[in-house]
Amino acid sequence: MSETRFDVLGIGNAIVDVLAHVDEEFLVRHDLVKGSMRLIDEVEAERLYEALGPTLEQSGGSAANTIAALASFGCRAAFIGKVKDDQLGNVFAHDIRATGAHFGTPMAEDGPSTARCLVLVTPDGERTMNTWLGAAQNLGPEDVDEELVAASGIVYLEGYLWDPPAAKEAFRKAAEVARASGRKVALSLSDAFCVDRHRESFLDLIRNAVDILFANEAEIKSLYQVKTFNDAMHAVRQDCPLAVLTRSAAGSVIALPDDVHVIEAAPVKKVEDATGAGDLFAAGFLAGHARGLDLPDAARLGALAAAEIIQQMGARATRPFHEVARENGYHHF
Amino acid sequence: MSETRFDVLGIGNAIVDVLAHVDEEFLVRHDLVKGSMRLIDEVEAERLYEALGPTLEQSGGSAANTIAALASFGCRAAFIGKVKDDQLGNVFAHDIRATGAHFGTPMAEDGPSTARCLVLVTPDGERTMNTWLGAAQNLGPEDVDEELVAASGIVYLEGYLWDPPAAKEAFRKAAEVARASGRKVALSLSDAFCVDRHRESFLDLIRNAVDILFANEAEIKSLYQVKTFNDAMHAVRQDCPLAVLTRSAAGSVIALPDDVHVIEAAPVKKVEDATGAGDLFAAGFLAGHARGLDLPDAARLGALAAAEIIQQMGARATRPFHEVARENGYHHF
Repeated sequence: MSETRFDVLGIGNAIVDVLAHVDEEFLVRHDLVKGSMRLIDEVEAERLYEALGPTLEQSGGSAANTIAALASFGCRAAFIGKVKDDQLGNVFAHDIRATGAHFGTPMAEDGPSTARCLVLVTPDGERTMNTWLGAAQNLGPEDVDEELVAASGIVYLEGYLWDPPAAKEAFRKAAEVARASGRKVALSLSDAFCVDRHRESFLDLIRNAVDILFANEAEIKSLYQVKTFNDAMHAVRQDCPLAVLTRSAAGSVIALPDDVHVIEAAPVKKVEDATGAGDLFAAGFLAGHARGLDLPDAARLGALAAAEIIQQMGARATRPFHEVARENGYHHF
Repeated sequence: MSETRFDVLGIGNAIVDVLAHVDEEFLVRHDLVKGSMRLIDEVEAERLYEALGPTLEQSGGSAANTIAALASFGCRAAFIGKVKDDQLGNVFAHDIRATGAHFGTPMAEDGPSTARCLVLVTPDGERTMNTWLGAAQNLGPEDVDEELVAASGIVYLEGYLWDPPAAKEAFRKAAEVARASGRKVALSLSDAFCVDRHRESFLDLIRNAVDILFANEAEIKSLYQVKTFNDAMHAVRQDCPLAVLTRSAAGSVIALPDDVHVIEAAPVKKVEDATGAGDLFAAGFLAGHARGLDLPDAARLGALAAAEIIQQMGARATRPFHEVARENGYHHF
């Protein structure tokens, strides 16, 4: 197997987040399920945006957040995702490249604008997401550079990619090329409702092509349609060689077929905005993994990255993660 | 004199801020003067943006920040400024209207894009601004709605408007209409270098047409080309019926021809980002003034609003200012 050019290649929806503070009543009035992600069309996106107070714009996207953070840890990271060549598309491209990540997916010249996610942050710091996929819908298998996939140690795929039909094909192609090249495939389940929409496909993929699975408690319970975390954990240990399961303040669990590690959450003063917690946990875990930490230590680094991001607005960090890692005694960074 | 429709009408450059953290060395390498605002062309804006790390986008503009905050205090506020009908222009329009402010200036259909200010925030919380004026350069006297000016108790003008030539004409027209309608004219000096570029015009305006002057220590000293704050204060008391002079952590001074009030700064835990401190001081002062507070109390409200904004990233608040005012015992809000 040849040398890798990248530790991790992420493939996901390329999205700019539009963050706004709302009160609980706003969610009720607009029939929104707190903590979830729903897909909306452009008309609904405009309508909801109109109803919002002042906003703040920042690059987002689940796998893109993970890749940006990995690069910020100092790891070799690349991203594939589709934006349009418009102002927000250029903001997205700037921000991911500014972390040091490689991003070379051609921008769409016409068609829908760059995707936006209206992220509504309630006073408890929980976020409710409303995504208009825009240009991200047009990511297709032609955007998956086989050479890039084959040159990356891990291909990290977000479950949200299962929503736009062409992206699903891109996802499948990437997973096949990675396996054929002897690389690892990682999957994040993204959201409990997303799991509900694509349960059978996800199970099939996990049983046949996924080396590392990332999921939170709601997602893994939704995947196996079970009531308790323990039942879900038991099930996933039969299906996948390595599952990293996050449980918010209750910490995380690394589930292997023959072993289970329980990891505490990192201390948090106040949850400002939960956006990106799962994405950043995955980044810290994969960064630790790339630097040769053992699994529990890699999960602790994931917990640290998640704790850092939920104490600020948005899912992109304002200071380099290699500093955060070093301050916390991770001298590999 | 007829009833007012608005307490304050602001006229200024309509700008979207692009905020990034940089270290001190970045400023040195790019020959930037910390704490100042410089005008740059589109090529330099692109070059500098390329060199920046990940950014965060938020509506800005000096007078626009003041008006957004005034509306957030619950005051009747309106804004005149020029954006293009592009993604960032629509973000600007959304954000100022979302505070409750009136904004009806027609968007440019062609020509340069919406103005951007690259705001570089150093670890000490100080900000260094690099503005590409874009569409804001094309604000002209035709954009100054005379009826709107005549219906506003105070017309608030930012000194930065003196930079784009057509905007200067808009500025002059607004001041004339306001005075002819028996309304008040307020001016913010914006920046010491801006004062240096337009000293004679500003002095002429202050001596003949300005009812309320806002300036910080560097600006008022630059205006009168004197070395000490006291000399500057002495000079401005001869020239202007009411000068509100801010001195960062040293508080503020209200200078009247026959009286001087010294006001303490509000407590601040940590300066996260100084962007908008002066704009928000003006907003708090004008909000207090509009609600009939005496001058020292209005200045205290200004200090409170400034303290609130420098403890977060960006110049637009994430929670309504009427809540901040009420929590601090201002029951008029």
